[in-house]
Amino acid sequence: MIKKVLIGLLCGAAMLTAGILIGHYGIDKSSSSAPAWVRDVSRDVDEGLLEEILSEVDNVRIQENLRELTKMPHMATTAGDEQTVQLMLKRWQDPESGLDQAWREEHMVYLSFPDPERPNKVTVVNSSNTVLHTVREKEKAYTPDQMDPAVVQPYAAYSPAGHVQGKLVYANYGTVSDYILLNQKADLKGAIAITRYGGAGRADKAINAAPYGILGVLVYTDPFDINDGFTSDANETYPHSWYMPPSGVERGAFASNYGDQLTPYLAAKEETYRIPVKDIPGVPPIPIQPIGFEDAYVLICELGGEQSPQTWQGGFNCTYNFGGPGFRPSSGFKDSNVTMDIFNYGELTNSSNVMGVIRGSVEPDRYVIYGNHRDSWVHGAIDPSSGTSVMLELTRVLGKMLKQGKWRPRRSIIFGSWGAEEFGLIGSTEYAEQYFTKLSERTVAYINVDIAVQGNASLQASGIPSLQNVVFKAAKQVKAPGVDSMSVYEKWKQYSNRTSPLHGLIPRMGHLTGAGSDYAPFIHYLGITSLDLSYTFDRSKTKARIYPAYHTAYDTFHYSSKFVDPGFYTHQAVTKTAGSILVRLADSLVLPLNCSDYAESLEDYLNSALIMYEDYLLAVNISMEPIKRAVANFRKAATHLEQVIRSADLANETPMKVRKINDQLMLLERAFLMPPAFPSQYRHAIWTPVETTIQSFPGLRDIYLKDISSGKVSLWDKVHQLVSVMSQAIEGAANMLFDVI
Amino acid sequence: MIKKVLIGLLCGAAMLTAGILIGHYGIDKSSSSAPAWVRDVSRDVDEGLLEEILSEVDNVRIQENLRELTKMPHMATTAGDEQTVQLMLKRWQDPESGLDQAWREEHMVYLSFPDPERPNKVTVVNSSNTVLHTVREKEKAYTPDQMDPAVVQPYAAYSPAGHVQGKLVYANYGTVSDYILLNQKADLKGAIAITRYGGAGRADKAINAAPYGILGVLVYTDPFDINDGFTSDANETYPHSWYMPPSGVERGAFASNYGDQLTPYLAAKEETYRIPVKDIPGVPPIPIQPIGFEDAYVLICELGGEQSPQTWQGGFNCTYNFGGPGFRPSSGFKDSNVTMDIFNYGELTNSSNVMGVIRGSVEPDRYVIYGNHRDSWVHGAIDPSSGTSVMLELTRVLGKMLKQGKWRPRRSIIFGSWGAEEFGLIGSTEYAEQYFTKLSERTVAYINVDIAVQGNASLQASGIPSLQNVVFKAAKQVKAPGVDSMSVYEKWKQYSNRTSPLHGLIPRMGHLTGAGSDYAPFIHYLGITSLDLSYTFDRSKTKARIYPAYHTAYDTFHYSSKFVDPGFYTHQAVTKTAGSILVRLADSLVLPLNCSDYAESLEDYLNSALIMYEDYLLAVNISMEPIKRAVANFRKAATHLEQVIRSADLANETPMKVRKINDQLMLLERAFLMPPAFPSQYRHAIWTPVETTIQSFPGLRDIYLKDISSGKVSLWDKVHQLVSVMSQAIEGAANMLFDVI
Repeated sequence: MIKKVLIGLLCGAAMLTAGILIGHYGIDKSSSSAPAWVRDVSRDVDEGLLEEILSEVDNVRIQENLRELTKMPHMATTAGDEQTVQLMLKRWQDPESGLDQAWREEHMVYLSFPDPERPNKVTVVNSSNTVLHTVREKEKAYTPDQMDPAVVQPYAAYSPAGHVQGKLVYANYGTVSDYILLNQKADLKGAIAITRYGGAGRADKAINAAPYGILGVLVYTDPFDINDGFTSDANETYPHSWYMPPSGVERGAFASNYGDQLTPYLAAKEETYRIPVKDIPGVPPIPIQPIGFEDAYVLICELGGEQSPQTWQGGFNCTYNFGGPGFRPSSGFKDSNVTMDIFNYGELTNSSNVMGVIRGSVEPDRYVIYGNHRDSWVHGAIDPSSGTSVMLELTRVLGKMLKQGKWRPRRSIIFGSWGAEEFGLIGSTEYAEQYFTKLSERTVAYINVDIAVQGNASLQASGIPSLQNVVFKAAKQVKAPGVDSMSVYEKWKQYSNRTSPLHGLIPRMGHLTGAGSDYAPFIHYLGITSLDLSYTFDRSKTKARIYPAYHTAYDTFHYSSKFVDPGFYTHQAVTKTAGSILVRLADSLVLPLNCSDYAESLEDYLNSALIMYEDYLLAVNISMEPIKRAVANFRKAATHLEQVIRSADLANETPMKVRKINDQLMLLERAFLMPPAFPSQYRHAIWTPVETTIQSFPGLRDIYLKDISSGKVSLWDKVHQLVSVMSQAIEGAANMLFDVI
Repeated sequence: MIKKVLIGLLCGAAMLTAGILIGHYGIDKSSSSAPAWVRDVSRDVDEGLLEEILSEVDNVRIQENLRELTKMPHMATTAGDEQTVQLMLKRWQDPESGLDQAWREEHMVYLSFPDPERPNKVTVVNSSNTVLHTVREKEKAYTPDQMDPAVVQPYAAYSPAGHVQGKLVYANYGTVSDYILLNQKADLKGAIAITRYGGAGRADKAINAAPYGILGVLVYTDPFDINDGFTSDANETYPHSWYMPPSGVERGAFASNYGDQLTPYLAAKEETYRIPVKDIPGVPPIPIQPIGFEDAYVLICELGGEQSPQTWQGGFNCTYNFGGPGFRPSSGFKDSNVTMDIFNYGELTNSSNVMGVIRGSVEPDRYVIYGNHRDSWVHGAIDPSSGTSVMLELTRVLGKMLKQGKWRPRRSIIFGSWGAEEFGLIGSTEYAEQYFTKLSERTVAYINVDIAVQGNASLQASGIPSLQNVVFKAAKQVKAPGVDSMSVYEKWKQYSNRTSPLHGLIPRMGHLTGAGSDYAPFIHYLGITSLDLSYTFDRSKTKARIYPAYHTAYDTFHYSSKFVDPGFYTHQAVTKTAGSILVRLADSLVLPLNCSDYAESLEDYLNSALIMYEDYLLAVNISMEPIKRAVANFRKAATHLEQVIRSADLANETPMKVRKINDQLMLLERAFLMPPAFPSQYRHAIWTPVETTIQSFPGLRDIYLKDISSGKVSLWDKVHQLVSVMSQAIEGAANMLFDVI
């Protein structure tokens, strides 16, 4: 009986258990069961997967990318450029390791070239028309690279053609004040000026010269500024070291405005309206030509006239005189003129961006853009192909994960391989102009890695302050190349640091107050949170402002692999760091943009501004209180939003909540743009470039430099207006962070 | 045994059942059960609840709102204005039927007033300085309303003060061509011109006159243009009908640009930079003063000189001569001058917007804005208080639902009671300038109901074409006032219609190509999808361009309740229509914005443009192909997005999908804004106001009028540039509708 009862109980229990199991698992709770997407929308960065991604990054593949990319010169729109287009497309369309989609986009842009049939000529000609000296037309060959017929003759893009002759004068860096001083020392009417790179924009050296009646300008890189004084290719310069050989010439775009010069604010399509070439603003009004320092040496050391000031002296073993104008009476060039025969011509031609995308899984309408230009001046192993090699390895690793079904980012990722950057950030700017609203409304951030590696000392990052945190996080995750026990972050902090009121001693991230690469249209025109990343050399060990082969025919695979990054471990570290930043921006549930760090930068700017300008402005009844209030409001709003984020359970609350917060963070940057009444390529009220390195509000600083400091008061109204514009921009940014309603 | 087995089976079955029940209901499916918000995020408009909301709208309450609002004149920043501020705040903060929050926001703006101590004077003075006629200073009183000391003397806001005297001439509407003709008939140097309202902007009548040496301008409303010829207050005009009495004077802002005149593009805060008053663009350079037609009659009918053309003749029973200049030799005014003593002054003063919000439940960061100005010229029963009465009733009904916990919209609703509209849309413009980015990024639509009711014939709507569908849906839901069997929609279609290629015969919704009310900063400056709504009179029965008491001291409760909407049933119908539109925009899962209807309008515009300009442009090698392609792309994109919407199961898919689509629809309008390089208050490439009624692209049309049609070719470059700008804008808009990646 007991047995029967037991059996009965056991059976009953078994039935009950079966019932419970069936009831729980077997029957769908129809209306109340969670849809499949509930988990997707709340997913955050998968740190394990990210580690796996980064561990796939291969230095040897980067090296081989670079070798492939630098096989031949690939100046914008040349056959070499087209080869790199095809390479990008092939890689990004690879079925095993490509992206979701890749394609090319063309713009018809205005470029400027030297005439291969009639090379530009610079000569010294005496009074009986005998040529006493001819400037070298091409750089000296040390490897087969320099012998490639596709190496473009050194020239100044956008310099007008022209044939001018005159007495030579030395104008230092060719700044406004340089010409003012020089004009007191020599008769400049009809002269030719020789200037050195640095100190002023390329085009400015000619623009500043023209009002004095100067007919043409030469520009060279002084060994003092780039080579720590080394000048001999017998044993000092490349190929013996990374220093610029005597015949090396920096090429460049000589234009003040970025983007296609004929279609400002409009994408350069075939039928797009073009301004007349003669109306292009900010290009040299007179011929200008860059030359090597071996020729500059011959010219400068023979100059007559008074000795120029100490700050004008460079690295040559002679005195830099102003020029009589012209050469010393004791010189073999006595009474000779310098003649410039410049045959540059402009051409409308198709330049390609190569675009590739990875579709986001949860928020395809949010973009993280990662870009670099593809075109070089010559082989461009460092500029830009170090960045392109890194980008190709990064897309391979991500593409592989994608194709294997292991990973798809929350947000969409767009890769841009920009064309014609060397002619003035043209590809990226046309892209920004063409997709203005779409990009403005949807882009979370833009990451630029152009010169990825120009040294092995430290990571160098310039970006919007809200990105500091994610850059640090990535840098902590990656081991510093060549140092066993240190992270990229630690090495960086050792190399360049500052003390933050909030974080203590941290690496110093720079501000994006320049326009030196393709981040410019993103931050300055679109107002998109941007970052520029590279690995750099130790500036305490050299005065070079950039790696010495920059824009010369020596920026080759040989140069990079021998003198810059043997083994490509630094390229690898940059790839990992950039990759980590990219994946975090694409995958984080809450965007890793920190507005308190932004507030700290604004407070820094404000404090500098108060020290420099407040008394001046009060004296003319312009109050800085509105800016003070705006910055204080911004701080309050940032603190508030962070509190909201901290106190929310975003993984479990409605996905509209995290989207709302992410939109606040994403669009914050847009609020800093000046009202549309102040049209310019530089629309950002905070990060607009200026000529000095004073860390403060750029508009005020400019006017201060031009006006207040000189005691003139004609621009007070402009200053007052700027105070209002900046206050409104900062208040508007604060408004984006406070509760949305 | 069978019994035992049966019992055992029954027990087992019972246990199984119990188990199933426990398993299904008793145990939470933890990880996989749906969170509470899953249903919220997919909720659509509740049509039953909407019906309940609309059924609450009460005509008598609207009437009482109007009575309260019009107790005294409430010109901007006066004591009467402050009373209406307090009324709005009281209603919107009501614990039973108020909004979530309401507050005032002040701007320090530049207004222009007549001097109560020294009223403006217009007289006829003979050669011995005897005053022969004095223009009436205040309008004649028919009800106590006109006797209120707060009734402002008729004047032209922003007319300069000044004391001028000269021979009178008649200049018709004061257009550019009117003055050209007049200048051929009379010596205008030193003259005073009398003009009639209409045909040109208010300020233009003086701006166009000044170059001829004309010293001052008078302006009046001709009985032909407003009164169907009726002129006598003995039995024809108010108080016997709605027609303007002889002493009635239309006041107005005489300024071409909207917003505070001293702080363009900047919110007018106390410390904001202000341009010098002398630099305000687009205001009269010479004194101008509006007068009643009883005085205009006395002046015009005495004029000498040649008879003016037929199109210049108005409603007076005399011939309108040009003026000799001056009066007929046979007139009692022979040799007399007209003297204007204008004492207007400018003042910086605080104007208030009253703001109220209802927080959205699911997407608080999406705004539907509903607004109307609060300030009037005098009592403003129609302009703007008909709209304000409607808004107050709508907020009461919505507020009640809200406070009772019956309803909370999906998106946030913002109500704006704007200040100082009559002085140039100042309150709304300062708001748009101050919150530029926040509003641009988050606003779904702006609904403006200013003059809610100026007649009983038909609904009248002007708006962005994508709103047509939701306006129709709302209009079908509401019964037409005074017609038993018809909806507002049917009545509207009967009154004004067009044939749509897609929809067949439908009511004609107008385009927002004007800047006559507070929608202007929203559509033209911010690029926000906007709508202007009112009920109007039957234009087949009168030539009046607007209700005849417009901007006079007769726009009173008495006037409205007696001649415009006795019983306030039309006000009620407008409240319901606007309310339905508002709730649908706030509550719909998918935003009710239809981009195919937008495409239809663009195609209309394009077709007109091709007919009018294509041949002209081809002759100078300007192709319209880019616009054609852009419009075709827009159509393709619109069709595609609608296909995406139709084929999706948005209520069950991830809420990120509907948010993505809604962002596409919301931000579409922003893409039509011109690039920031073309700064203006009018940034919209399609709906910018122009002077003609030709339905085509405004920029082209303007240049066509000024240039192409007259055979001049100086502006071809500008035309080409415009074609490029418009193409890029339309392509950019299409890009917003295609798949996001």
